[in-house]
Amino acid sequence: MTEQESTIQALGQRAKQASYALANLASNKKQALLRAIAAELRQASAAIIAANAQDLAAARQAGLDAAMLDRLLLDEARLDGIIADIDKVIALGDPVGQELDSRLLDNGLRLSRRRVPLGVIGVIYEARPNVTVDIAVLALKTGNAVILRGGKETLASNKVLTSAIRQALVAQGLPADAVQLIDSPDRSLVSALLKLDKYVDMIVPRGGAQLQRLCAEQATIPVILGGIGICHLFVDEAADLKRAVDVIANAKVQRPTVCNALDTLLVHRAIAAEFIPVICRELAALGVTFYGCEQTRALSAASGITPLAADDESYATEWLSLTLGIRVVQDLDEAVAHIRRYSSGHSEAILTDNIHAAAEFMNQVDSAAVYVNASTRFTDGSEFGLGAEVAVSTQKLHARGPMGLEALTTYKWLGTGDYTRRK
Amino acid sequence: MTEQESTIQALGQRAKQASYALANLASNKKQALLRAIAAELRQASAAIIAANAQDLAAARQAGLDAAMLDRLLLDEARLDGIIADIDKVIALGDPVGQELDSRLLDNGLRLSRRRVPLGVIGVIYEARPNVTVDIAVLALKTGNAVILRGGKETLASNKVLTSAIRQALVAQGLPADAVQLIDSPDRSLVSALLKLDKYVDMIVPRGGAQLQRLCAEQATIPVILGGIGICHLFVDEAADLKRAVDVIANAKVQRPTVCNALDTLLVHRAIAAEFIPVICRELAALGVTFYGCEQTRALSAASGITPLAADDESYATEWLSLTLGIRVVQDLDEAVAHIRRYSSGHSEAILTDNIHAAAEFMNQVDSAAVYVNASTRFTDGSEFGLGAEVAVSTQKLHARGPMGLEALTTYKWLGTGDYTRRK
Repeated sequence: MTEQESTIQALGQRAKQASYALANLASNKKQALLRAIAAELRQASAAIIAANAQDLAAARQAGLDAAMLDRLLLDEARLDGIIADIDKVIALGDPVGQELDSRLLDNGLRLSRRRVPLGVIGVIYEARPNVTVDIAVLALKTGNAVILRGGKETLASNKVLTSAIRQALVAQGLPADAVQLIDSPDRSLVSALLKLDKYVDMIVPRGGAQLQRLCAEQATIPVILGGIGICHLFVDEAADLKRAVDVIANAKVQRPTVCNALDTLLVHRAIAAEFIPVICRELAALGVTFYGCEQTRALSAASGITPLAADDESYATEWLSLTLGIRVVQDLDEAVAHIRRYSSGHSEAILTDNIHAAAEFMNQVDSAAVYVNASTRFTDGSEFGLGAEVAVSTQKLHARGPMGLEALTTYKWLGTGDYTRRK
Repeated sequence: MTEQESTIQALGQRAKQASYALANLASNKKQALLRAIAAELRQASAAIIAANAQDLAAARQAGLDAAMLDRLLLDEARLDGIIADIDKVIALGDPVGQELDSRLLDNGLRLSRRRVPLGVIGVIYEARPNVTVDIAVLALKTGNAVILRGGKETLASNKVLTSAIRQALVAQGLPADAVQLIDSPDRSLVSALLKLDKYVDMIVPRGGAQLQRLCAEQATIPVILGGIGICHLFVDEAADLKRAVDVIANAKVQRPTVCNALDTLLVHRAIAAEFIPVICRELAALGVTFYGCEQTRALSAASGITPLAADDESYATEWLSLTLGIRVVQDLDEAVAHIRRYSSGHSEAILTDNIHAAAEFMNQVDSAAVYVNASTRFTDGSEFGLGAEVAVSTQKLHARGPMGLEALTTYKWLGTGDYTRRK
């Protein structure tokens, strides 16, 4: 075993041990813990902001761009926001402890399923210090221990944040090791974490495609892949084209850097000649640039815009920017076929006033979220009323789409007999 | 890409395509399909039994043991049983199409979750030809396509079985490729299948520890691990010792070769001197042999039996035979600690008349099934009233314990607006 492997093994063992102390806590105890964490973070705010200044200085020196620096930044206002979010989690219902499907079996056993914490959750994320608090709080609310691995750019901030959380745990008579930070940028620690199936019950990678791939390939622990959205919107021939423009603009422009932003617009050929010049002009005015199929490029000429030529690669790209692919399709079937081929299974939408087209699209498109006459931007835990979001899953097992508190739980079957034997 | 990889890729692509045709079938269409499969199997019974005779002859020549030969065997009676089981699956409710948690969101969207098939399921299993039919029928009942990889010893039988199923699909106007068999014993095909995440949504390995490990390590697709049961039963000081004997005998002896059979008996020290000689004598009379801790070995001497010395390795063994580990523990806490250390998370039981001990055991033991005053042998889809069993999961994501039809489904979020934008 390498030194890194034994470091991670010890950390996992401590996390598992801590998870036992959390698993059967009553909700009011967990609420008290969350309030204590908020208080500790408030008290440590000067130290947190100082540590963050250190991270920022190092990041500037390393030449990180403005967007990255902004993501790293923790000032007083942002920290207040993070602490205020803890109150929102406190207000949520606790899924743990519910008994589901209780019944008396023919064999004489009384059987039920009880919702219980997963146990130990490993979360790997990029340089956003708010995630450290978010995830710790969601994990503790559901009685889980958590192992955090944040981006190396926020290591100083994360150390102070987790230390405050650990102090709150201890003050509440709970094991500090319920929240542990991997406090070294050594990448081999991540590899070791991904193979720690003896102690870790779920890995959630919150990051780009490369991190997702790494986890899919290396992990021996169940992983929830997600957060990659190659999202489509299909403008049907029966769409209200005037109203369509605002929905498409919302999907593309409101926050182009996130996973539920629109990547490819599919346009029914029957309305393409009318619609494509309009949508190109409107979006171009908002700063959007385009990749288009041949027809799109011909039709958009009327608006004075010529998109770059779209190809297999551009259709398979999550833009995360003010770029949009546009393709003219023969009909709904071709739109569905395009989505099946290129989608990452995140969010797709149809705009149509035709009830048959709407139903067909919902039936045929198999993504985490499928919309009729709505922006793809709605795929989000808080928009969906889940109150919190651990991640957005694009796989089909366990949790799909925005993951709320329930996704941090599992169930165990409880059977009670009277010295009952199987026949 | 190797030849094996491209073979598997083509197979996966066909399965995915076929899955689209199944996903939105009404229940009565799927019932008709299952009836057609039963009819085709009946019609092909002579061919099936002839192919099985071929498998058996080859197995005998290869020197496989009697237990293995028995598992391989498909005679008329067994085939009748397999066909009769299809009727049971027909009688089950169809979980696909249900809409869950429908509600109107604050943002104006009407949102629900619709239960849908997973899509394509890959199942890797050992030399039991009945599994071929079982799994195909369960997958089709829930609108999934399936890729089957059975043991090489049953290849001839499996070819005829799947060919009959594919004929039924075609007769019902459905794509034959909804059920495909990997019809070569080449192991590199399995490795290729495990990395086919583009087309396969879930892998279920039904086999021993080695297969489970292979899948955990190589798969880039979500895998449901399971079927390995290192099961414990704790005899508390407050147990009714007379009645305990029969439950323990049931757990150990009724069917020792299956995953829910008892592996280690934990005995509270307060009743060890009285109980250990009794249980050893009773079980020995049923053919059980023992590994015991030091105390067990000393105490069992009174019954004229001396267990072999138990150690770390024996406690970590799934016996799958008439062998039993016995250990004396200080109290319930030590029993729980033993289980946490050695259990595979399958099934554990306590025997006690003390309500506090019972509650504590159910709270502290985190396995798929936890029993009070019942045999571990109950962990089974049909005993649990699920009607069918795809596998028994020992992991915590997606499905835990016996997996019924619902475990072959996921959900998608459906949102309907009125050209609704996110604020």
